[in-house]
Amino acid sequence: MAVAETFDLRKYCRETAQRAREASAELASLSGGTKIKFLRRAAELLRANHESLAEANAKDIAAAPGYGLTDAAIDRLRLTPKVVESMAVGLEEVAALPEPIGEVIESTIRPNGLAINKTRVPLGVVFFIYESRPNVTADAAAICVKSGNAVILRGGKEAIHSNLAIVELIAQAADESGLPEHAVQLVSTTDREAVGEFLRMPEYIDLAIPRGGEGLIRRVAEEARMPVIKHFTGNCHVYVDAAADLDIAERVVVNSKCQRLGTCNTAESLLVHRDVAAEFMPRIAKALGAHSIELRCDTRTRSLVPAAKAATEEDWGREYLAPIISIKIVDTLEEAIRHINRYGSKHTDAIITGNLTAARRFTTAVDSSAVMVNASTRFNDGFEFGLGAEIGISTDKFHARGPCGIKELTSYKYVVYGDGQVRG
Amino acid sequence: MAVAETFDLRKYCRETAQRAREASAELASLSGGTKIKFLRRAAELLRANHESLAEANAKDIAAAPGYGLTDAAIDRLRLTPKVVESMAVGLEEVAALPEPIGEVIESTIRPNGLAINKTRVPLGVVFFIYESRPNVTADAAAICVKSGNAVILRGGKEAIHSNLAIVELIAQAADESGLPEHAVQLVSTTDREAVGEFLRMPEYIDLAIPRGGEGLIRRVAEEARMPVIKHFTGNCHVYVDAAADLDIAERVVVNSKCQRLGTCNTAESLLVHRDVAAEFMPRIAKALGAHSIELRCDTRTRSLVPAAKAATEEDWGREYLAPIISIKIVDTLEEAIRHINRYGSKHTDAIITGNLTAARRFTTAVDSSAVMVNASTRFNDGFEFGLGAEIGISTDKFHARGPCGIKELTSYKYVVYGDGQVRG
Repeated sequence: MAVAETFDLRKYCRETAQRAREASAELASLSGGTKIKFLRRAAELLRANHESLAEANAKDIAAAPGYGLTDAAIDRLRLTPKVVESMAVGLEEVAALPEPIGEVIESTIRPNGLAINKTRVPLGVVFFIYESRPNVTADAAAICVKSGNAVILRGGKEAIHSNLAIVELIAQAADESGLPEHAVQLVSTTDREAVGEFLRMPEYIDLAIPRGGEGLIRRVAEEARMPVIKHFTGNCHVYVDAAADLDIAERVVVNSKCQRLGTCNTAESLLVHRDVAAEFMPRIAKALGAHSIELRCDTRTRSLVPAAKAATEEDWGREYLAPIISIKIVDTLEEAIRHINRYGSKHTDAIITGNLTAARRFTTAVDSSAVMVNASTRFNDGFEFGLGAEIGISTDKFHARGPCGIKELTSYKYVVYGDGQVRG
Repeated sequence: MAVAETFDLRKYCRETAQRAREASAELASLSGGTKIKFLRRAAELLRANHESLAEANAKDIAAAPGYGLTDAAIDRLRLTPKVVESMAVGLEEVAALPEPIGEVIESTIRPNGLAINKTRVPLGVVFFIYESRPNVTADAAAICVKSGNAVILRGGKEAIHSNLAIVELIAQAADESGLPEHAVQLVSTTDREAVGEFLRMPEYIDLAIPRGGEGLIRRVAEEARMPVIKHFTGNCHVYVDAAADLDIAERVVVNSKCQRLGTCNTAESLLVHRDVAAEFMPRIAKALGAHSIELRCDTRTRSLVPAAKAATEEDWGREYLAPIISIKIVDTLEEAIRHINRYGSKHTDAIITGNLTAARRFTTAVDSSAVMVNASTRFNDGFEFGLGAEIGISTDKFHARGPCGIKELTSYKYVVYGDGQVRG
């Protein structure tokens, strides 16, 4: 009966969330040592059980064509020994990060002698919704636990067997190391309605993080009754300034566009100052051509690169995630800034320049999570920024912006020490 | 015609929000000096025009009984020369705070030579909804502008004439100092629907801050399509530990409860360890009695203070904002922590103890925005914490917790300097 099923799903979700809330209270005052022990033990168990993980994974691989997955998507689903090893190394790397909880972020001694310590604390319970790659399961669990949060993991149905097997090992590691039993829970039903149920429980869940396609993120942002950290993909730009070193410009443009085509920090658009266009355009067209990148250009650029396609107005706002780049000549730095703030997605944008004033103006005026000067857009990444781990790249400005590591999953409280002070 | 009116309201709100968005883009790269000039000039204009402000205020005072305002509420509405002077001083104090925008919050040099500068930036546009006190208008404008944000102010209908007069002077100061014309806007209609309109424009407004009664805050949190910083009132506790200095305990309890009855950081409940109850209860009952505070006590406390009223289960969760306090004897520190985390509101809680272990345990386990050791709950305040200004006290954990000053209205971007680095 549909009614009974709905009732059960709701109950299951509520109980899962309540258990996470209880676990989070324990996690908040757990020693860093216990968390390290857990993460290292989980790494050991993943390595020791790579064969049984492969067996569970085989069920997902077998079912994948039925879900209409492409060959590339099926590849990303695979838990090869190499992927399992990288998951284990990831857990160990998170274990090795400095303990974040209890850190005094700022301290002020007031004239009346009060010591005001702004102290890092966990957020509480994180609901993490992600798509098919099962290795994300271990990463997300590690980052959440290290930051003192309980986590409810909701993976894609395509990876359900792999995820269940991974989380079973994580639960074993938790049990053996003294971590609360429900610190890490996987939603075991693939019912789509479960996501909606969790998003309606702000009393138990402090933060929702959707990672996946734009549709998923929009749905979560729409339905969630708790804060959401959103990770939209990016329409990233490289602007080659009049004062650019053109060797650097070529190297950075090629890397920003070609190093990986499908990531959120891949460049999708190139702006070139008119003063260097005549020299740079034919050169970059050749370099991008060598990587089979299709060029969609404005009229002025096409006069320099006749073989290129014409860009339409729509191209300026596109995130291709494909071997295509839009190219435009601008008359001024200010025009580049206006173009980026209008068509960009506030993700990652770069300027290539040797001019300090231009660099300062660009980095101040471009409203993006990361602004690069003479460096590839591909560096906007938690590992590349030295955060040690990453659960995504926030395109929000509120709470966390750019790469989200362990600290981005924390809040703070004020711990105030006195010796009898009262307010006058 | 109702339809035409609705259409106009929507248009008015949309245009106001668009203008704020445009102003915010300019504000983000405005020099600190211009903001200081604006704030000082606004202070001068307020002082010079205190008579015309009093005239505008007189219209609100005359209308106040018609809105059913109590005498106390009418008093809070008054723009006396003293209140105007304190508004002017507030503006000058905000002017004197260090410039927050552009501050490098953290800096990392990566092995490849990239310099990663986490740099403070404004949030963008703040929508601030507040109740009757008109002096909040100048405070909020100052804090938002200093932090580089445009602000849309929505004051109560009871203060509309006062607010319009204040904002007119602020606009004059903006004009004279080179601040964008629409950096500070007041919603000139008192139509209740205007709030809903603004809350549906996340494309223009980055943050909503409701300050007022619980009903207002819940409505805004429910309707807003952008992040909200909520400021609920507090059910604050003082716990007197077994190892408390009872002189300090008496002083802190009396101050926490009696210094001001109606504020969110006023203590509403007292917990006393059984080992010191026999000595402390009669003493504190007398001290609170001298301030005409009604005591609502558990059975054990009543055996020590027979004249006290009996507390009901409901009392433990109450925020009286009145001369009443609930009192309970606990057997252990852990019982006090459990009680506070169950019945409290995560606002401000204090422990009185000379025992370091107890202090460390209490401050770790109590999940509140501020946890005081041997100090009054009344210190949870932006000025008392040294933030220099305050737009409210957040009871959220996400983005900002506790007192919200200038930095709490900012975000950050990563500004990355390299010399041609690409990703391998």
